[in-house]
Amino acid sequence: MTDFINPNKNQLSRFKPKTLDAQSLLDQLKRGDRAALSQALTLVESKTEGHRKIADKLIQLALPFSGKSIRIGITGVPGVGKSTFIEAFGEHLTQAGKKLAVLAIDPTSTKNKGSILGDKTRMEKLSVNQNAFIRPSPSSGSLGGVAHKTREAILLCEAAGFDVIFVETVGVGQSETMVKSMVDFFMLLMLAGAGDELQGIKRGIMEMADLLVINKADGDNIIKSKAASAEYKRALHLFPPNENEWIPRVAVASALEKSGMDNIWKDILEFNNQQQLKGYFDKNRQAQQMDWFDNLLISRMTETFLKGQADLIQQIKLDIRNGQLNPSAGVSKVLEQISKA
Amino acid sequence: MTDFINPNKNQLSRFKPKTLDAQSLLDQLKRGDRAALSQALTLVESKTEGHRKIADKLIQLALPFSGKSIRIGITGVPGVGKSTFIEAFGEHLTQAGKKLAVLAIDPTSTKNKGSILGDKTRMEKLSVNQNAFIRPSPSSGSLGGVAHKTREAILLCEAAGFDVIFVETVGVGQSETMVKSMVDFFMLLMLAGAGDELQGIKRGIMEMADLLVINKADGDNIIKSKAASAEYKRALHLFPPNENEWIPRVAVASALEKSGMDNIWKDILEFNNQQQLKGYFDKNRQAQQMDWFDNLLISRMTETFLKGQADLIQQIKLDIRNGQLNPSAGVSKVLEQISKA
Repeated sequence: MTDFINPNKNQLSRFKPKTLDAQSLLDQLKRGDRAALSQALTLVESKTEGHRKIADKLIQLALPFSGKSIRIGITGVPGVGKSTFIEAFGEHLTQAGKKLAVLAIDPTSTKNKGSILGDKTRMEKLSVNQNAFIRPSPSSGSLGGVAHKTREAILLCEAAGFDVIFVETVGVGQSETMVKSMVDFFMLLMLAGAGDELQGIKRGIMEMADLLVINKADGDNIIKSKAASAEYKRALHLFPPNENEWIPRVAVASALEKSGMDNIWKDILEFNNQQQLKGYFDKNRQAQQMDWFDNLLISRMTETFLKGQADLIQQIKLDIRNGQLNPSAGVSKVLEQISKA
Repeated sequence: MTDFINPNKNQLSRFKPKTLDAQSLLDQLKRGDRAALSQALTLVESKTEGHRKIADKLIQLALPFSGKSIRIGITGVPGVGKSTFIEAFGEHLTQAGKKLAVLAIDPTSTKNKGSILGDKTRMEKLSVNQNAFIRPSPSSGSLGGVAHKTREAILLCEAAGFDVIFVETVGVGQSETMVKSMVDFFMLLMLAGAGDELQGIKRGIMEMADLLVINKADGDNIIKSKAASAEYKRALHLFPPNENEWIPRVAVASALEKSGMDNIWKDILEFNNQQQLKGYFDKNRQAQQMDWFDNLLISRMTETFLKGQADLIQQIKLDIRNGQLNPSAGVSKVLEQISKA
């Protein structure tokens, strides 16, 4: 409801009454109407109860037309050249006839910072590319809420005919695990150089990657990048294999010089073929759907039943921190309070 | 209640009425009464409502006397020599005057398999060592339930004066993440040799380790083990550092020849000193307490509110798997059903 206080800030204010019908919105976006896709995504992000119901219906209707893209997670810390890379790799794919949607997850973004304008500025070419569609991060809500909206956005982009989806995130926090849980293929951009390649990367992220891309492999950096690539290849063999039998690869690329893009795409296609053949592709997607359901169930249950208990929970956590209360007794207190409410 | 159907299988049947009083049970276990500690742990594991209440009181009373041990997670796949290692390392510590409690988490264990007898057989010396106390895995319940009980068991062992706690698990599943979330220091046992060292280890576990121990570094294996150690040291430097600034170490050991035990203990003490000095030790324990509370709250909420919804949830998951239902609509169905109940 507060969404409509400032109509200039809210895309839903531009909805024509007829487009609020889920079926006609789906028909439009399936015909390739980009405005309809934008509106559908805004609908999915809306917190208004009425919108939520139409969004649920839209997603349900879109379901049979979704699933046919390859979903690629891309992460890397600020400074690694992520925007430039996505531009270069995106152009490479659209030139090869692909239709590309770029979705962003940025847990630090707010209504103002994570604006479409911002994304258009940082990806100038892609933003005017007729075969590309860029959508900034949903600007509000918990990490879990953002994850849910992004998963729905993926389905809608697929129904709209996009066959490659990038889900982009910043490689410094929890959002990587979330992105990993909604994509088929996960790549981490890095830099070569003494220790620089580790700057800001969180432990555990590297191990989730199907492909490490040493970016900025241009000019004086080429030799260093190739050496880093060799070292990482060697190191990756010392770590346990993935359950899907894929051995993570290492690639070098220069987004600036647009080099290495073909090899990265080849790696992705090989991954895709191998995973499809061995049955892991579908298995992974099904597991992701189940995780989505489980997480959403917990987060909506928490919202429903813990509403109004924030003060109590804060006090209990303080008591636990101070060693005056054990967690089990704390939980009992909360549950007692809920049963009274 | 069903716990009492077969009294021979249930330790609680041996409770004398007076020991069911939380305060006197605590007094006894604080005096070093091992039978009292065993009874307290059985009480904590009991699912009977009445026992649960006494257990909660016991934990609350024990809280001021807990926390003074170093908690060490030990994992490794079957065949790595974990039992022999725990015997050798345990003997090393008790000979140095330490009091050691060994708790096991085995998600595959059942009432029959995970018996005390089994644990006594596989750790013959430690099981008769007056300064060691071995407790098998809680034999029932979800992984989350087992985690909760093990956390409470740690507190009780600490109140009973044990100053080193091993939490042992099998390095093949989800239980490692759980153990990591309740210990100060986490070590992974491995084997040297072409690819053997990775057999059965799940991806992601190695990255959680504060110390990799190349076990069975004896006889013909010594050279291979030292080479593997050097390789892992090199590889670990290629991965991002831990947030606690600790750079994971690699040690070689032979549980059979009891070599390397002193160096491993030195590594643990250095870790402990460093983490205490930098403040990460307390920070980590506090974060673990908060996680404990959060996880327990979610699991008890789930138990309370999803009771009786198992059939519905199973049907919904089937529909999601078949692409007939989207997760959001599925969650709405469950919540509707709960609100009716």
